[in-house]
Amino acid sequence: MAKKDTKSGQATVISPKSSKKSDIKGITVKKEDDFSEWYTQVIQKADLADYSSVSGCIVYKPNSYSVWEVIKDVTDKKFKAVGIKNAYFPLFIPESLLQKEAAHVEGFAPEVAWVTHAGNSKLAERLAIRPTSETIMYDSYSKWIRSYNDLPLRLNQWCNVVRWEFKHPTPFLRGREFLWNEGHTVFATKKEAEAEETEIIGIYNEVCENYLAMPSLIGRKSEKEKFAGAEYTTSMEFIMPNGKAIQGPDFHHDGQNFAKAFDITFMDENGKQQYAWQNTFAITTRMIGVLIAMHGDNKGLVLPPKLAPIQVVIVPILFEDSKRDVLKEAKEIQKRLEKKGITVHLDFRENYSPGWKFNDWELKGIPVRIEFGPKDLEKKTAIIVRRDNGEKQNLALTAIADEVRLVLDNMQTSLFETAKRILKEKIAIVEDMKDANKKLEEKMIIFAPWCGSVECEDNFKEATGAKSLNSPKEQPELKNKKCFACEEKAKSWFYFGRSY
Amino acid sequence: MAKKDTKSGQATVISPKSSKKSDIKGITVKKEDDFSEWYTQVIQKADLADYSSVSGCIVYKPNSYSVWEVIKDVTDKKFKAVGIKNAYFPLFIPESLLQKEAAHVEGFAPEVAWVTHAGNSKLAERLAIRPTSETIMYDSYSKWIRSYNDLPLRLNQWCNVVRWEFKHPTPFLRGREFLWNEGHTVFATKKEAEAEETEIIGIYNEVCENYLAMPSLIGRKSEKEKFAGAEYTTSMEFIMPNGKAIQGPDFHHDGQNFAKAFDITFMDENGKQQYAWQNTFAITTRMIGVLIAMHGDNKGLVLPPKLAPIQVVIVPILFEDSKRDVLKEAKEIQKRLEKKGITVHLDFRENYSPGWKFNDWELKGIPVRIEFGPKDLEKKTAIIVRRDNGEKQNLALTAIADEVRLVLDNMQTSLFETAKRILKEKIAIVEDMKDANKKLEEKMIIFAPWCGSVECEDNFKEATGAKSLNSPKEQPELKNKKCFACEEKAKSWFYFGRSY
Repeated sequence: MAKKDTKSGQATVISPKSSKKSDIKGITVKKEDDFSEWYTQVIQKADLADYSSVSGCIVYKPNSYSVWEVIKDVTDKKFKAVGIKNAYFPLFIPESLLQKEAAHVEGFAPEVAWVTHAGNSKLAERLAIRPTSETIMYDSYSKWIRSYNDLPLRLNQWCNVVRWEFKHPTPFLRGREFLWNEGHTVFATKKEAEAEETEIIGIYNEVCENYLAMPSLIGRKSEKEKFAGAEYTTSMEFIMPNGKAIQGPDFHHDGQNFAKAFDITFMDENGKQQYAWQNTFAITTRMIGVLIAMHGDNKGLVLPPKLAPIQVVIVPILFEDSKRDVLKEAKEIQKRLEKKGITVHLDFRENYSPGWKFNDWELKGIPVRIEFGPKDLEKKTAIIVRRDNGEKQNLALTAIADEVRLVLDNMQTSLFETAKRILKEKIAIVEDMKDANKKLEEKMIIFAPWCGSVECEDNFKEATGAKSLNSPKEQPELKNKKCFACEEKAKSWFYFGRSY
Repeated sequence: MAKKDTKSGQATVISPKSSKKSDIKGITVKKEDDFSEWYTQVIQKADLADYSSVSGCIVYKPNSYSVWEVIKDVTDKKFKAVGIKNAYFPLFIPESLLQKEAAHVEGFAPEVAWVTHAGNSKLAERLAIRPTSETIMYDSYSKWIRSYNDLPLRLNQWCNVVRWEFKHPTPFLRGREFLWNEGHTVFATKKEAEAEETEIIGIYNEVCENYLAMPSLIGRKSEKEKFAGAEYTTSMEFIMPNGKAIQGPDFHHDGQNFAKAFDITFMDENGKQQYAWQNTFAITTRMIGVLIAMHGDNKGLVLPPKLAPIQVVIVPILFEDSKRDVLKEAKEIQKRLEKKGITVHLDFRENYSPGWKFNDWELKGIPVRIEFGPKDLEKKTAIIVRRDNGEKQNLALTAIADEVRLVLDNMQTSLFETAKRILKEKIAIVEDMKDANKKLEEKMIIFAPWCGSVECEDNFKEATGAKSLNSPKEQPELKNKKCFACEEKAKSWFYFGRSY
């Protein structure tokens, strides 16, 4: 399908055969003006996802699925390194099992997709599509765990889950089917179980900070917002450029709640029967959406180099009379970069112009572009362009591999530093409702002394539309401060904000 | 939970605290006597899977899931190397979409699990849980593909699928939910599409031969047995030790069948609208079951070294007075092996006896066991035992890493060679029904000249319970042979056998 050479000896840029040039347009709104429209356009134009014929379910296209693959692979390696093993449990959960833990079923039943028929037969009992797998897994755990020798049991699965939300879906951020890991661990003592929190949140935070280049607010959720069935939930909250918070990975300590509902007991070293202690934890494909929102700009997606399926794209400038030599040298550049462990794509398509390609790869967020034409060949140099800040350098070919490696590392760091600065700027310390309202209107996250009561949170949400996010471990001094919302005695500093 | 040292200075083997010793028993039937009971016992005793509270759905425990992870990782790398990209499509398929291709819906509808409700609401249209994803994927493909520039499109997904079979389920081999890859590719020409067969079957065969150590019969399926909606199917058939065949990975050339049903067209280089050409291909978790059946023996599971999550287990022989020194040196052995890229587990549990551990690791199929006690420490040697043939060697510690590497490689090759020999022995060439019946009774696979008609196959299946398997590309001379079953003119040599 390659375009045939013309016989002309003239040095003309090879022009596109079809009018493809006009197919791709840049993002037509600014991120700061209309975030929601910007987000939708990036997803479509960077070819990340598509709507499907099932309402609320999207297609994860290769450009987004590859991001998930990195998140999954890195997290999985770290899980395995600390002794967590992978398994796979059934997609289906019999209705009677789902109902075993009261708070849990109350939290999930309204969003369950129910299988009622197989072929032409009606099933004797309805089957839930897993919204999460506690109930089907713990049914097995109760059979498997007999003595302290069987503990700790630390299993994980990477799978799809379905929550039939009736709210407005947003690709990646809110949908009816998503992908995740669900870790479900069992320990002999409360102490051991609780000690796992640091390890797991540490792993998730490393993945988010070092790979996704995204800092977060880490802390305990409120009673109202904790996981259905948990003793407490620790979450990582990301603050989107529009000032809305979104919950990322989380860790739940379940105490003995499920152990009691599912009869997960063991014989301890003294021959005494004990209920076990449990945790669960997850990271989901929602992080793809957070990533898009956080780093993207008015030219489209921006991918942190460690997550980019292609880190460098080489766009050769092709003229008829120098095409062969330019392409030959471009392949050499590619080889040199690949030797340094850099993933490179050489875009030698002839039916697209260089300008169209620049635009296309910028939309797709590829971290570094190398422009290379006959003049560069003559001077033994190439132009490299960094995606996030547009910085251009003219580099000697001999130095290019080392320099690109450096640019990729710098870009990774720089994205994280920028995200950290923005997160800091978005937080306002407030101590009363007047300030709280003002700062929420300014699209800020507020950090305030709070009483912690469910009633107070309900009232606050009713009045402002904002929810509690979490409460960090390291607390500013509380002294005798009153709750910013209800003026009762404050119990801790808490983050609040509008959220997804 | 480690057992405390006793104060006794006597050199006694540390005995198990609990009576765990009696918990594990070897396989109580012989593979050759009662294959089905043997298979069930291996699955339970090697801790590979468990039944769940959903009939026909099993739990893939870490010991089996780790095998799937290797199959998946190796296959995935090879797919990516030839340009296939991963994506993820919805689990749900609207009933109207599933019905678009007539042969396809007829093949799958009887086994579809239907979602009819979400929360408390009845859905406007029933949703099928994907039994395979042609229909949901091709609905998207028809939107995405516009011109020859968009082709080839080669996407793959790793996911779960549900087929509500009403036949007797067998863990891994036949169940209602399984995991697989499904590749779905689109090409501009029939020639390009058909050329993909060699590439894909080549990849699957490499995974099966070089990793799973299992040869297969590769060839075209009959009209009756081809995939619902395909032009033709190429399958890999594995012959189990009980003489039953089971279909492994397969490749389907769909021609333009789905392209026409889903309107997948493109503008060719001459500006003409054309229907596209398509293929699909898959490998599934069924291969775990085939692996167990093929290599396992009367002591339990046997894992080919390349698939074993643990390749070597070191069992130190612990006496009170030498425990510390033996463990210290055992850790040195572990390090030396790990430097050679070998995965090693040091089993230093004190509440199990060495004999109990030998038994346990043999049941679980770990390729090499190293026994190491105080006498070995003195002589600076260790005993290594190969799982498949029981061969023991007494080796100098200085040579152990290289020697174990060699033993692992030899075991991998040897398992494959044995499997090849058994496959060959199980095939009988027959040319008439009398011979066919006799050989089927002897639990053989038959290879016979066949007419290829659906009616003849129906009659044969009715009479013998055996089905056609496939027809290899390389054919013996056919001359003017008659069909072995109906005595019409034979069209090709074909494999037939009883099957799962």
